[in-house]
Amino acid sequence: MIDAVAFNDAGLVPVIAQDALSKQVLMVAWMNREALQETVDSGQAVYYSRSRSRLWRKGEESGHVQHVKELRLDCDNDVILMQVEQVGGIACHTGRNHCFYKKLDSQGQWQDVEPVIKPSDEIYSKKDNNP
Amino acid sequence: MIDAVAFNDAGLVPVIAQDALSKQVLMVAWMNREALQETVDSGQAVYYSRSRSRLWRKGEESGHVQHVKELRLDCDNDVILMQVEQVGGIACHTGRNHCFYKKLDSQGQWQDVEPVIKPSDEIYSKKDNNP
Repeated sequence: MIDAVAFNDAGLVPVIAQDALSKQVLMVAWMNREALQETVDSGQAVYYSRSRSRLWRKGEESGHVQHVKELRLDCDNDVILMQVEQVGGIACHTGRNHCFYKKLDSQGQWQDVEPVIKPSDEIYSKKDNNP
Repeated sequence: MIDAVAFNDAGLVPVIAQDALSKQVLMVAWMNREALQETVDSGQAVYYSRSRSRLWRKGEESGHVQHVKELRLDCDNDVILMQVEQVGGIACHTGRNHCFYKKLDSQGQWQDVEPVIKPSDEIYSKKDNNP
């Protein structure tokens, strides 16, 4: 299963998380081999955080885990499409339902068009970097 | 509009093409600045082909052009989600409706689960590299 995936030079593959019911594209993140294997084994989305250089078990801080319903691979074996059930209805770290909240308007401007469901400082209040 | 996009070190941004009606994720490809500008100006999807190192006007050979209905940018400004109307109902070069036709089954195997609507040699018959 893993060997069929064409990871890039950094050992990563982009993964699209799509809401299994609404079909809204929620977010795009990356997996390495270990993250993909743990995702399949656990049934919950595990990504690789490029900024933190470690596995990122989606929802580990926010509680907004993703239950995986289906995994698909594209024709070039280098993109994964994942159907998920998004716990809490919030996929984006900004507190929105999904990450694609900037819409190009007719004036050529990106406009925020999705509401913040929960402010991020409430989502991540458990994480205190300034004790 | 263009300056807001966080292109990667190669000057590219990944773009998800989603069917505006069915919400099926059709494909993922890349755009550089020029491709994005032409996509916005023309209303038809223009990508950058990494294998051919040139602009790729989707449908230029197959006729399977994509009419763009909406463009969105994600929270990190590094992924674009594009709603399209897929002419011909075939987005994938393999002749399938979309590129994500390999589904992970319960045995851990990727299975082809989508039919070929039109064989690729019929789609690309106009392209004759061996005259």
